Amino acid sequence: MPTSPLTLHPDRALPADPAVREIARRIYTQIADLPLISMHGHVEAQAFAENTPFADPAQLLIVPDHYVTRMLASQGISYDALGIPRTDGAPVEADSRAIWRTFCENWKLYRGTPSRYWIEHELVEVFDVHEVPSAESADRIYDQIDAVVSSPDFRPQQLLDRFGIEIISTTDPATSDLAHHARIAEQGLGERVVPTFRPDAVYQIGGPSWAQEVVALGEVSGIDTGDYTGFLEALRERRRAFVAAGARASDHGHLRADTTPMDAADASALYARVLAGHAPSAEEAFAFEAHMLFTTAEMSCEDGLVMQLHPGVLRDHHSGVLQSYGKDKGYDIPVPVDYARGVQPMLDRFGRDPRFRCILFTIDETVYSRELAPIAGTYPSVRLGAPWWFLDSPDGMRRFRELATETAGFYNTSGFVDDTRAFASIPARHDLSRRIDAGYLANLVAEHRLQEDEATEVAIDLSSTLPRAAYPPIAH
Amino acid sequence: MPTSPLTLHPDRALPADPAVREIARRIYTQIADLPLISMHGHVEAQAFAENTPFADPAQLLIVPDHYVTRMLASQGISYDALGIPRTDGAPVEADSRAIWRTFCENWKLYRGTPSRYWIEHELVEVFDVHEVPSAESADRIYDQIDAVVSSPDFRPQQLLDRFGIEIISTTDPATSDLAHHARIAEQGLGERVVPTFRPDAVYQIGGPSWAQEVVALGEVSGIDTGDYTGFLEALRERRRAFVAAGARASDHGHLRADTTPMDAADASALYARVLAGHAPSAEEAFAFEAHMLFTTAEMSCEDGLVMQLHPGVLRDHHSGVLQSYGKDKGYDIPVPVDYARGVQPMLDRFGRDPRFRCILFTIDETVYSRELAPIAGTYPSVRLGAPWWFLDSPDGMRRFRELATETAGFYNTSGFVDDTRAFASIPARHDLSRRIDAGYLANLVAEHRLQEDEATEVAIDLSSTLPRAAYPPIAH
Amino acid sequence: MPTSPLTLHPDRALPADPAVREIARRIYTQIADLPLISMHGHVEAQAFAENTPFADPAQLLIVPDHYVTRMLASQGISYDALGIPRTDGAPVEADSRAIWRTFCENWKLYRGTPSRYWIEHELVEVFDVHEVPSAESADRIYDQIDAVVSSPDFRPQQLLDRFGIEIISTTDPATSDLAHHARIAEQGLGERVVPTFRPDAVYQIGGPSWAQEVVALGEVSGIDTGDYTGFLEALRERRRAFVAAGARASDHGHLRADTTPMDAADASALYARVLAGHAPSAEEAFAFEAHMLFTTAEMSCEDGLVMQLHPGVLRDHHSGVLQSYGKDKGYDIPVPVDYARGVQPMLDRFGRDPRFRCILFTIDETVYSRELAPIAGTYPSVRLGAPWWFLDSPDGMRRFRELATETAGFYNTSGFVDDTRAFASIPARHDLSRRIDAGYLANLVAEHRLQEDEATEVAIDLSSTLPRAAYPPIAH
Repeated sequence: MPTSPLTLHPDRALPADPAVREIARRIYTQIADLPLISMHGHVEAQAFAENTPFADPAQLLIVPDHYVTRMLASQGISYDALGIPRTDGAPVEADSRAIWRTFCENWKLYRGTPSRYWIEHELVEVFDVHEVPSAESADRIYDQIDAVVSSPDFRPQQLLDRFGIEIISTTDPATSDLAHHARIAEQGLGERVVPTFRPDAVYQIGGPSWAQEVVALGEVSGIDTGDYTGFLEALRERRRAFVAAGARASDHGHLRADTTPMDAADASALYARVLAGHAPSAEEAFAFEAHMLFTTAEMSCEDGLVMQLHPGVLRDHHSGVLQSYGKDKGYDIPVPVDYARGVQPMLDRFGRDPRFRCILFTIDETVYSRELAPIAGTYPSVRLGAPWWFLDSPDGMRRFRELATETAGFYNTSGFVDDTRAFASIPARHDLSRRIDAGYLANLVAEHRLQEDEATEVAIDLSSTLPRAAYPPIAH
Repeated sequence: MPTSPLTLHPDRALPADPAVREIARRIYTQIADLPLISMHGHVEAQAFAENTPFADPAQLLIVPDHYVTRMLASQGISYDALGIPRTDGAPVEADSRAIWRTFCENWKLYRGTPSRYWIEHELVEVFDVHEVPSAESADRIYDQIDAVVSSPDFRPQQLLDRFGIEIISTTDPATSDLAHHARIAEQGLGERVVPTFRPDAVYQIGGPSWAQEVVALGEVSGIDTGDYTGFLEALRERRRAFVAAGARASDHGHLRADTTPMDAADASALYARVLAGHAPSAEEAFAFEAHMLFTTAEMSCEDGLVMQLHPGVLRDHHSGVLQSYGKDKGYDIPVPVDYARGVQPMLDRFGRDPRFRCILFTIDETVYSRELAPIAGTYPSVRLGAPWWFLDSPDGMRRFRELATETAGFYNTSGFVDDTRAFASIPARHDLSRRIDAGYLANLVAEHRLQEDEATEVAIDLSSTLPRAAYPPIAH
Repeated sequence: MPTSPLTLHPDRALPADPAVREIARRIYTQIADLPLISMHGHVEAQAFAENTPFADPAQLLIVPDHYVTRMLASQGISYDALGIPRTDGAPVEADSRAIWRTFCENWKLYRGTPSRYWIEHELVEVFDVHEVPSAESADRIYDQIDAVVSSPDFRPQQLLDRFGIEIISTTDPATSDLAHHARIAEQGLGERVVPTFRPDAVYQIGGPSWAQEVVALGEVSGIDTGDYTGFLEALRERRRAFVAAGARASDHGHLRADTTPMDAADASALYARVLAGHAPSAEEAFAFEAHMLFTTAEMSCEDGLVMQLHPGVLRDHHSGVLQSYGKDKGYDIPVPVDYARGVQPMLDRFGRDPRFRCILFTIDETVYSRELAPIAGTYPSVRLGAPWWFLDSPDGMRRFRELATETAGFYNTSGFVDDTRAFASIPARHDLSRRIDAGYLANLVAEHRLQEDEATEVAIDLSSTLPRAAYPPIAH
């Protein structure tokens, strides 16, 4: 006997007021089927290169999605019971059906969250599931998803077409040899699946894996990273290799927003000292990161990679979880960041350079109206990044438009960025964003602050034109 | 001749949109009469123990409520004219009728504030007053309230039943002998009126009354607090006594959120030094408070008292008011707090311990989406406290739901906490909260983000189930 | 062939919900034609004194308005192309028609911004333009505005009547000889166009022009500013002169909110040292500014000038723009400010002095509910300033009401302040503010949180009564 039917209302996430909704519907209709530009994400390159089949429902939708698991864990369900691998290899729940059941039994925890919204969309649209998750329905839903997932049509490359993804970017460490992207290119997808250059690990001087990352950088670039000059040259080489592989952007997630450059001699001496085994002080490590961000902007002017910044997250808030289960397990907590002062040295030097482009993201909503909209609203190089992480939710995205638009306008924003590792959720995320934008614009129309034809044009721009413009292709 | 009639509209504080309001009404109807769980408040234990009659209208509704008096004072009315006692005992306005008149004449100052909303509710529902306060109506309203207040049915114990209060907590210093609670228990109300353990005064090392508080702690516990070990032992003893008297929680309001532990030897030495009469530095005092919060979490694991934190208030912003009229006179101003970093040491150690429970409150709205929702949405021990102090207002509570729900969900929040010393306002506060939650949930339903049956279940949970679960009874 | 017609909808910026809008319309009708109180602005005194004709459309509406030019510049249009004068006198675009065309071609950039809203209002109401700006319509619109601007009725003094401006304040440096205001007074407008005392340049000790400003202060006051005592005396003299010229307020825009006084001897010694050519440290300069704010409050008690504070803007974020084009070119970025702690010394001393009045502004929205509403809601001397700069926008003003009202009430706010140098936009700004307030109040009525007659009274108070009360005339 089925539980409640699961349906997607055509007006979901549109404004409740009937007249505003009517306008929103008309706008949404114009953008619903536009191609998806997915220029910042965390799907693995390997999945595209090998066109790997997806695993079972639990391994696809639960275990790797720390938004899903953190909610269950917050109510006392252990990571072991959710099948999250232990760093020491000790056994955890291996029965995917049991994991799936735990999830379905706790479906009510997701009420009011974007995970609920996305998963509903995926269940109906992607997996053809039409009943609400519950203890009772868990096994039937599992079987249905499993059948879809096992189909030969349900492979990463096929989903690119099915989802209408025009272009998607992976995120790759500076030390990547880009072998997966080479294989992707061989299969004719080189312009559609592109890498993003993420050098955090080699910028975090003195970090646990820094020395070995620097060695790896030397190996992959063929340039000796034994001194600071070689380090910079190796970075430049990798950036060229990324550009050649289709990359359009670099990505930088440090705790602070500081971009103060060091004196080159000081940077070089610090590099040598730490490479020789002397641990830097915390302030030295921060200063080096800041210096490298400044230096990255300089390289960005040279090679055209768009620089994406997203500071302000205190990683691994619980050391026990880090130790037992590793990174990215839901214990990354945002903190305030001195954003306007932080990026000042970089923008003072490169912010009006016509070769420079950067996108500023935040997980601290207070900087939207106070700092980022004013900055994006004046510096020609800067685009204000879409709300993401905890904030690409219905109310979060609405607040973003309300807090940023009046100062930055629409045309200094990046358009939507999905930022997910959950491949099957990409269409749901873009669709939700388009609905929220349609609703925000419809309200401007209803309040006679914008004409409807303009609103429709803006909606199209936010969905496609602006994300394309924010990450322009680089001649190579 | 009466002034304007005062009525309570059945749809007050529900959303304006007719379709959303219709849903909100249905949800509200299901929760309007649920019992009140009032687990954090400031009504005096003595009032329950002695079932003290309330004083006249001014002494009941104006003089002790610093939300009411601050608004009058902000427009230049003196504290003396409001009958607020001077610390030096100099005479102040003693004519309650005159104080009441001042209040009624200035009724318009409360427009748009929650005080206005609550007092209207009280006037109509509790005191059967049906005209708007004004210079003209002041005396008639005074007489009407006075008649109600003098009735033998209008006593604290009787009001527990009339208001539908299932359980209420007082707030009691660590040095309390709990005699009032003993008397409450003798009258069969021991499970219904419970204490909360508030040790701020003995944690604030070197504070003006610290030494004498520590002595008092020694006396009431029968344990020598002459050294740090005895101090901790005395705290443990009091916590046991509080648990035996029905307590379920401790409460902690320090300026900072820091919970960094000190080395035990350092804490012990500092304790000895200050007890010997050497004033600690400001930083030493902060460090000791942080250490005691960490230590409290440890004790909480041992005895089960839920730890409530509410940092970030700069007390006594105006020294003249403190000197002339004492504490809690409307000059406590919120300031930013480094919350995520502050609680990190405590949560790193105890945050995933199944014995530990804490509730994090704030008066700084910026931490809802940035820090507290992410923390409550992952740590199993943490619940995000209800908006309170300046924030348990219609718009304040709406913002809380909008800022917190998408990341923390509903089930990692504490449910409503009224936090008031104004006993007669308790039903109004719970009612307002239920209306706002009904409206927020109705909007989710209207936007097809939640089913109505789920919304109703959540509304019930927020009103009763979650506050009960956030403060579970402790076996004793 | 005309492009789209440009009209102003009578319901613009009112709430979309039909029932709420109906109430908002009724409230708005009662306030739409009230006189404008414009007590904080940046129109030049000379324009009134000489009743100078305005220049052409580009020089009137684009070149001097950094909200307009920053948006164009943010999309890569050069300041030169916008006719913004270079500090080195090098040639820039001199063809006003070309500048106007650039603006019209980029009209879409302003979608969703208040500039768009204000300019539409100006075009229709002030310039009788009825088509949407575009490349195609640019020249026709230029001609139409030019015709209006050239009319002898379109002069500052005539516009005072046409716009219904009851009183307007200019902003004048402490070193102003007030000659323009003398001429204004001779023409019988002395009570209608008044100066505001802005001493920032002489408070910023060690700043690039400080020494020469201090000399100028000595000259204009006739008091030797060669030492600190003379400096204070000269300030007092200028304040008296400003009061005599009709001034009601002083204005202070420093980076920090700190108001900690220095020891008089230390202040005096620092003053002497810097005047002798020794540069102060950054911290010394900040300390002197803080000290001068404290001292200003003291003077304010003596002479009655209302003290306006608006800290928290990092000026000249891009040094190249400062160097090439000067100050106020769109590169002033807000930053967080420690507001409650900053103003504590000043308010502790003067905050309850019946002679003192101050108005606290912010460009950081987070302090509305956390710090400024609690402070304005208790200190009798403090009014919470209107949202301005980036925040006097439809959504910005709505957020202000929602964040501030519940704690500060309406009667501890300043009422609307337009804060503009764009004279022709003043009616549009007041009109927008009145619409937003009408909408906010209508919502309170629709939610049965306020009676409609009260809401109308509040709307009138916010438009006229409160701004008049916030800046009372000073007997002279």
